[in-house]
Amino acid sequence: MRIDILTVMPEALESPLHCSIVQRAQDKGLVEIVVHNLRDWSLRKHRKVDDYAFSGEAGMVMQIEPVDRCIEALKAQRDYDDVIFTSPDGELLTQPLANRLSLARNLIILCGHYKGVDFRIREHLVTREISIGDYVLTGGELPAAVIADAVVRLIPGAIGDEQSALNDSFQDNLLEAPIYTRPADYKGWRVPDILLSGNEAAIAEWKMQQALERTRRLRPNLLDNA
Amino acid sequence: MRIDILTVMPEALESPLHCSIVQRAQDKGLVEIVVHNLRDWSLRKHRKVDDYAFSGEAGMVMQIEPVDRCIEALKAQRDYDDVIFTSPDGELLTQPLANRLSLARNLIILCGHYKGVDFRIREHLVTREISIGDYVLTGGELPAAVIADAVVRLIPGAIGDEQSALNDSFQDNLLEAPIYTRPADYKGWRVPDILLSGNEAAIAEWKMQQALERTRRLRPNLLDNA
Repeated sequence: MRIDILTVMPEALESPLHCSIVQRAQDKGLVEIVVHNLRDWSLRKHRKVDDYAFSGEAGMVMQIEPVDRCIEALKAQRDYDDVIFTSPDGELLTQPLANRLSLARNLIILCGHYKGVDFRIREHLVTREISIGDYVLTGGELPAAVIADAVVRLIPGAIGDEQSALNDSFQDNLLEAPIYTRPADYKGWRVPDILLSGNEAAIAEWKMQQALERTRRLRPNLLDNA
Repeated sequence: MRIDILTVMPEALESPLHCSIVQRAQDKGLVEIVVHNLRDWSLRKHRKVDDYAFSGEAGMVMQIEPVDRCIEALKAQRDYDDVIFTSPDGELLTQPLANRLSLARNLIILCGHYKGVDFRIREHLVTREISIGDYVLTGGELPAAVIADAVVRLIPGAIGDEQSALNDSFQDNLLEAPIYTRPADYKGWRVPDILLSGNEAAIAEWKMQQALERTRRLRPNLLDNA
């Protein structure tokens, strides 16, 4: 898989894309992530990529030309499954959507910034708009990193222990059961006795009950989708 | 405002916290963001902070002791409004929640990692669990950066142009109207004539209509909360 990320702020993406599982997946050759600075595609003085809004509101708007030129150059080299734009208007990112995206061969993710991007980019160049949640952020860089992280960890081989991804929250529409590690007693706060019992069948049943109870109480909507 | 972020992977937070508006807010003294490496609070050999799960599943679990020691040291210095844990089980981050958090004086954000954190941390030390969305990520670092970004940009003075935050999507439960900038014609894709008309009243009405229409079509649930 290859992910091309287009941004006016490439430095914002440096550490999230070079940590932990995402870096390891790149090292293993499971995914190639390339960050493009849209300023490199500007034809204007001082590599400018933004201008005032026609409608007169405050804030600068990202122009279509650098975005179009960069996407065209990429498309000349390979086919892309999707050109994703990170936007609060978009389809909400969910685990099923992350699963689907993890099957793609090539993805472009365009990060918005400033007051937004010229709407013609969204009408003519973008094929899918994704929101990571109903809140406003400084730019599209963190959302792009979130999408990349959610997707890359699902590529077979990205996580050392496959089992660990399979029993994640959401993969079976259940939250996870509480989990504990040593010490069994910390300041009088004790691990539930059953987990120390060694009775594997009883532990498995306890975990399922806890997962169901926590999902019912905290995220009943997940059970509707089951 | 002060935000303390506790993590086993401080390097993952470097670039998101040092970019753009979040860095500017720190430079202006509006917010102080301090990242703590939980390994510095480990009492074990090789600064280990994780161990196997009692229940036997794959994956490592973050131990309570380093987290407890770090939080205790912070609380000895100042009062905290909340100790936030980033978790898929948590309350969903929304713009109203970001607004509320932006009024806090001091926040701790604990990033989960590996298979999870010892559940006693969540029972006894954490006061609020927040999820940035119904999907699984490699760790809690990106969610912590998302929460910090969403909150910091709401602190008065963080955004140069106050107007720009006020008419964000979600602040009035409406998505934003389409926005355009130069050139008025790009490859035959034209900016709507009304925006070039100079008729301010007509433009304002068009924008409100577009915002309503887009919200009805793309995010009808936002109108239920209005």
